[in-house]
Amino acid sequence: MSTYGTLFRVTTFGESHCASVGAIIDGCPPGLQLSAADIQVQMDRRRPGQSDLTTPRNEKDAVLLQSGLEHGVTLGTPIALMVRNEDQRPHDYSETDLYPRPSHADYTYLEKYGVKASSGGGRSSARETVGRVAAGAIAERYLKFAYGVEIVAFVSSVGKVHLPVTVPAPSVDEDDNDDAPAPMSEEFRALLASVSRAEVDKSATRCPHPETAERMKKRIIRAKDAADSIGGTVTCVIRNLPSGLGEPVFDKFEAKLAHAMLSIPATKGFEIGSGFRGAEVPGSKHNDAFVRRADGSLGTETNWSGGVQGGITNAEDVYFRVSFKPPATISQAQATAQYDGTPGSLAARGRHDPCVVPRAVPIVEAMASIVVMDLLLIQKAREGAAALLPPITTLPATMVMPPKVKVNGSS
Amino acid sequence: MSTYGTLFRVTTFGESHCASVGAIIDGCPPGLQLSAADIQVQMDRRRPGQSDLTTPRNEKDAVLLQSGLEHGVTLGTPIALMVRNEDQRPHDYSETDLYPRPSHADYTYLEKYGVKASSGGGRSSARETVGRVAAGAIAERYLKFAYGVEIVAFVSSVGKVHLPVTVPAPSVDEDDNDDAPAPMSEEFRALLASVSRAEVDKSATRCPHPETAERMKKRIIRAKDAADSIGGTVTCVIRNLPSGLGEPVFDKFEAKLAHAMLSIPATKGFEIGSGFRGAEVPGSKHNDAFVRRADGSLGTETNWSGGVQGGITNAEDVYFRVSFKPPATISQAQATAQYDGTPGSLAARGRHDPCVVPRAVPIVEAMASIVVMDLLLIQKAREGAAALLPPITTLPATMVMPPKVKVNGSS
Amino acid sequence: MSTYGTLFRVTTFGESHCASVGAIIDGCPPGLQLSAADIQVQMDRRRPGQSDLTTPRNEKDAVLLQSGLEHGVTLGTPIALMVRNEDQRPHDYSETDLYPRPSHADYTYLEKYGVKASSGGGRSSARETVGRVAAGAIAERYLKFAYGVEIVAFVSSVGKVHLPVTVPAPSVDEDDNDDAPAPMSEEFRALLASVSRAEVDKSATRCPHPETAERMKKRIIRAKDAADSIGGTVTCVIRNLPSGLGEPVFDKFEAKLAHAMLSIPATKGFEIGSGFRGAEVPGSKHNDAFVRRADGSLGTETNWSGGVQGGITNAEDVYFRVSFKPPATISQAQATAQYDGTPGSLAARGRHDPCVVPRAVPIVEAMASIVVMDLLLIQKAREGAAALLPPITTLPATMVMPPKVKVNGSS
Amino acid sequence: MSTYGTLFRVTTFGESHCASVGAIIDGCPPGLQLSAADIQVQMDRRRPGQSDLTTPRNEKDAVLLQSGLEHGVTLGTPIALMVRNEDQRPHDYSETDLYPRPSHADYTYLEKYGVKASSGGGRSSARETVGRVAAGAIAERYLKFAYGVEIVAFVSSVGKVHLPVTVPAPSVDEDDNDDAPAPMSEEFRALLASVSRAEVDKSATRCPHPETAERMKKRIIRAKDAADSIGGTVTCVIRNLPSGLGEPVFDKFEAKLAHAMLSIPATKGFEIGSGFRGAEVPGSKHNDAFVRRADGSLGTETNWSGGVQGGITNAEDVYFRVSFKPPATISQAQATAQYDGTPGSLAARGRHDPCVVPRAVPIVEAMASIVVMDLLLIQKAREGAAALLPPITTLPATMVMPPKVKVNGSS
Repeated sequence: MSTYGTLFRVTTFGESHCASVGAIIDGCPPGLQLSAADIQVQMDRRRPGQSDLTTPRNEKDAVLLQSGLEHGVTLGTPIALMVRNEDQRPHDYSETDLYPRPSHADYTYLEKYGVKASSGGGRSSARETVGRVAAGAIAERYLKFAYGVEIVAFVSSVGKVHLPVTVPAPSVDEDDNDDAPAPMSEEFRALLASVSRAEVDKSATRCPHPETAERMKKRIIRAKDAADSIGGTVTCVIRNLPSGLGEPVFDKFEAKLAHAMLSIPATKGFEIGSGFRGAEVPGSKHNDAFVRRADGSLGTETNWSGGVQGGITNAEDVYFRVSFKPPATISQAQATAQYDGTPGSLAARGRHDPCVVPRAVPIVEAMASIVVMDLLLIQKAREGAAALLPPITTLPATMVMPPKVKVNGSS
Repeated sequence: MSTYGTLFRVTTFGESHCASVGAIIDGCPPGLQLSAADIQVQMDRRRPGQSDLTTPRNEKDAVLLQSGLEHGVTLGTPIALMVRNEDQRPHDYSETDLYPRPSHADYTYLEKYGVKASSGGGRSSARETVGRVAAGAIAERYLKFAYGVEIVAFVSSVGKVHLPVTVPAPSVDEDDNDDAPAPMSEEFRALLASVSRAEVDKSATRCPHPETAERMKKRIIRAKDAADSIGGTVTCVIRNLPSGLGEPVFDKFEAKLAHAMLSIPATKGFEIGSGFRGAEVPGSKHNDAFVRRADGSLGTETNWSGGVQGGITNAEDVYFRVSFKPPATISQAQATAQYDGTPGSLAARGRHDPCVVPRAVPIVEAMASIVVMDLLLIQKAREGAAALLPPITTLPATMVMPPKVKVNGSS
Repeated sequence: MSTYGTLFRVTTFGESHCASVGAIIDGCPPGLQLSAADIQVQMDRRRPGQSDLTTPRNEKDAVLLQSGLEHGVTLGTPIALMVRNEDQRPHDYSETDLYPRPSHADYTYLEKYGVKASSGGGRSSARETVGRVAAGAIAERYLKFAYGVEIVAFVSSVGKVHLPVTVPAPSVDEDDNDDAPAPMSEEFRALLASVSRAEVDKSATRCPHPETAERMKKRIIRAKDAADSIGGTVTCVIRNLPSGLGEPVFDKFEAKLAHAMLSIPATKGFEIGSGFRGAEVPGSKHNDAFVRRADGSLGTETNWSGGVQGGITNAEDVYFRVSFKPPATISQAQATAQYDGTPGSLAARGRHDPCVVPRAVPIVEAMASIVVMDLLLIQKAREGAAALLPPITTLPATMVMPPKVKVNGSS
Repeated sequence: MSTYGTLFRVTTFGESHCASVGAIIDGCPPGLQLSAADIQVQMDRRRPGQSDLTTPRNEKDAVLLQSGLEHGVTLGTPIALMVRNEDQRPHDYSETDLYPRPSHADYTYLEKYGVKASSGGGRSSARETVGRVAAGAIAERYLKFAYGVEIVAFVSSVGKVHLPVTVPAPSVDEDDNDDAPAPMSEEFRALLASVSRAEVDKSATRCPHPETAERMKKRIIRAKDAADSIGGTVTCVIRNLPSGLGEPVFDKFEAKLAHAMLSIPATKGFEIGSGFRGAEVPGSKHNDAFVRRADGSLGTETNWSGGVQGGITNAEDVYFRVSFKPPATISQAQATAQYDGTPGSLAARGRHDPCVVPRAVPIVEAMASIVVMDLLLIQKAREGAAALLPPITTLPATMVMPPKVKVNGSS
């Protein structure tokens, strides 16, 4: 339904052409300094009309905070916020109403509910994501304060134009030798370790690799000029996460992330760490050997696991990739059928993105933030409760954590 | 945590070396004919020791039903079931206890809980999936009776050996031409439409394509002989699903599926329909045009969507693919560190699968069944409630479904 | 937290002095005819400033619908609504800020969150119930259409002034004879069977018994004149409920009702059917004997059960009573302590109700509607799912329902 | 359904005459020392056949732990436990199968599910509470270690025989003077402050007041001898609770308690603190004035609130009372109707408790423990998360807690 989360709960409302869209965020920790401006930053990265690569629909998307704060500090009570739908133009779609748009949600909404919004899209509209982005901005602000968590997403492919340093795609059916390249390049690891939103935003494509960004831009313009659309992928890294997040067995960290990502409109796939490439290699090459870090804690030498082992974070960087299909609404004519089955041809009107991935970047970041925030709160409950118990003295040493040994022998 | 679902709720318990593993299934419709034998079929497909491709750990895994049935009929009350851990051998692991196994959950469990099971694995053990498979067998039995739903999973790759007819992998960075092959072959669509569990089980690899199965088998044996392991993928098709399943916006059908699949141990990726390949093609080639079916309902000509649009099923086949990493526990020596950071070498002992995908097949089917069952119940609530309302007469015709027109004019 | 319900989910936001209060209602069946005016009726019964028995704080409480409807019909998507806080006067409370109000939530909010709203009350303010009443109005509109369900609450006591026909209070410690009066009078049963909101609203006290209403009014005025407050009880009846609602074992109908009622500010008790009086009588007098109704279904001769047996509705009237303490905020001086423990005297300022029960009537109705709606949807899921199974032929006759026999032999 | 709780989740299974009954407890903090014997203590207080006041059905109810522990320490993973149904005698009920027992759940289960257990009762059987009591024993063990929490329930009335010191019953319709006795006696407060399980268990009635216990015993024996049954009430106190528990607005502490208590079979009412009596008094007499405690914290002089204000605990004792109806199953003949409506007479066979309250005592304690545990974990999440934020420096002093001042000036 329209609520996500257990302790950090986000409930969104609104469709493409109603009075407003927004969300209630329940469970935000009290005492967080927060202003509308903190949220607006990500809203502006999501909003339509940012560049000639996105839909010309123009929405200022100004966040209006309704509750849950005083003097710029959260009270721990629900934060309601809304954004007015100003540029609605409900008539744009009217002539094509006899046709369910191919690969869009018009038909399935009608099958599910028996009625549908006149605009068709209803809740499947990208406008629904306004509430998610706002909620995510609140979550990531908390995470930044509490742990210095950094969440950065970027466009890793548009059509067949791929950021060269990312995880190579799986083979189709190669000779089954083991001497294949490792699943992840050093350049990619370096990119994950350093990429910032500022770098990502240098190009309207949100690809942080300038030459690739240029090629992606051309690919999007070509789709736009052809009254067509094009898909792409978004990669996201989460840095400075504490270990211990993720709830075995059904709410593993990667399971919650996959759920959150596949709930974003137009997504078709998710992979974490080595992902589909990881299915091709032997364990001896895939396993992340442990090493002692300078502070005495354990880290891993490689990170094919993508920061999770057994569904629980291990304090290495989490990184994952999300696949977005090409937008279904295109203005070139398509042979298809009307709701009643009559064959015909549909050329969609209205304003549409030729490619969603540049605007999907802050949405992926938002959903990642929300997942982390919720799992963090659940782990804090466990840690806080366990800390009140007397020390365990009756267990074999191998069932509890040994003391940390710092590298230079210092305590 | 250890409960999955809203109305069809599965709660599992048990770890590798405790008294028993099992589950409580709450919300099963009353009046379903069900016996332990109906469940045992899938349990036997999951259990270890089936062939020389799997771990020699031998568990009969006989299901013991505790409650919720009388005279072979479900009462609508919780069905508890358990399977004893007979072949425990807790000492197998004892000598290597100083080392967290690389890419296994030993370390993260300890970080999360402060204690861990002596066997290490704890709830991350594949034995935890016993409860899931039993629950899934109940769900799929209901779905078969109610809609003739068929859920069939199969191994689509082991290492780099791929079933030739599956969706081609995405390109790495090709020239950005649009003339690429369609994302799905006719052979693959035919396979999805017809593949049965009997065909899948003809090979111990659970790949329904005999020549490929043979190559996969060799690949697994090679890993085993090298004291190594190898990854793979499982593809699953769900046929005869009704339309309308999946709850916008956070509980889209594919989001719930992705969550369920990524909660299975060792998974690293999920894609539905065209998946990652779909991110490479233009909308004009990816959109599934509507066509009128013989019964007057709308179907789609192609099915790159994988049976879902806007997060809701459209009555076409749902198909998806899941990536499994190579098992982390391997018996060859690995350079790694102990819990306290001391560098050293670990050669895991114990009995392990060199490749999990053959045994993962019934687990994927089970999780798919559980997801479908839960979403079906939620949609039944909506349909049942909406059916009690007076007919809607005040809406524009385009907001409601027109009557179906059968193909030969026969009303 | 701030969300109630499983399939019919109400999430409220807002405190006493923020921009707006409101709610998101998720899961409303699609196709329900609904206007803001339908909701406003109950909002007007809840709003302050209705009579000289309530707080002079004046809020028009006009409902602003944001989403989920088109052309006056629900789409099945989240319905967001808000009411602006127009008459805020945040300075009213300022001088007394050093004191936590005795028996109010000022202190506990601070203990829980570490911060509190400047107005003190925060989410414990009666303004939070605006969203509940709106959500309840939507639920009861559905229930009226679907089953003709009628939900009517009324004031059954103010201080020691009791509606004479209600369930007698339990004894303190009488002789343990069994010849006590039956726990419920005929007059009370007749009142439950017929009482309407129109009758209830004839008096500003919302007591449908004119003489008692007059005495209650005097009691409230006396409290008001003494700068004091007074408690009371609200009784509620739900008529025309279908049987089968309520989910064993933790979500019994009465458990959900009790939860919902005790979540209303200022409540201290809940009883259903014979309630506390029922604890005093023997089973032979308390049991509700079954009788055949005219339509062949089973009814009960008496209804001490209050319409529920084993946590499931039996199609008899549900009735229950809720206890409300006297409002904590009173303007007479009270000896108490400041937040830092300094003893002193507090005379609260601001505008307060001397007695909450007249305005609590629509809130009780709203929460009852929400509970019924949610449990109804869950039961519809079960019924819809069970209806798809083949008939059960293998059970003993006593485990299934025999066919109904109408009273006059007419099939 | 059959799961209770958000972070401390209890899922029970089993009915009267199946193989076993039990529960899965998920979310128990790791590192808790726990043995089956710790659980058995409360199981033994719940089990049938303890005295001549309870059903002669004899069940040893030995707890069998299945998972979640090693070496007597919890691992943080699900704890599954079961108790075999040894003394099943399913034929006891066979002759009366044509009749739904009046005020029992036979009829409503059949209406709800379309089928019912052959024994009738199904999940409404008191045997279902086995899992609750076991789960509660685990929760209270944690709470004892962590905060020294003490939860003691006792029988406060049987029929009209009341423990003299408890809260007086509300008046029926007295003169509306304000000079009524205070709602709670000093003796009662003293009893709440000191009562122990040892004192409670001195009498088979579980009433800690010897003379009253004797009168209660006679009342129960009289019901038994008359082939009848009798109701009663249980009062429970929770001592040493921390402040801050309970989640505004829908999950207030008392709302969760009410929910939990009304989910116990045979309950008809719940009141906390002054309860129904509190509805009769003016605010000036009901308000709990604040006082500074020796440690500098705030306490209240009286405690009519019952330890909760605004739905949140204030560190005073929580106390509440639960009403239990007389058991529906009685062996004297009752005029009633068969399932098909045929009038007749039913004299139930089988073994039944003439009064449930003595055995309900550990069940009330268990449900209270579970509620506290779950709300404590949620509050620990908030506290742990808030503690990671930088100090708030921008709020007015009245919005944050002032430093504590200890009574003798010692910082």
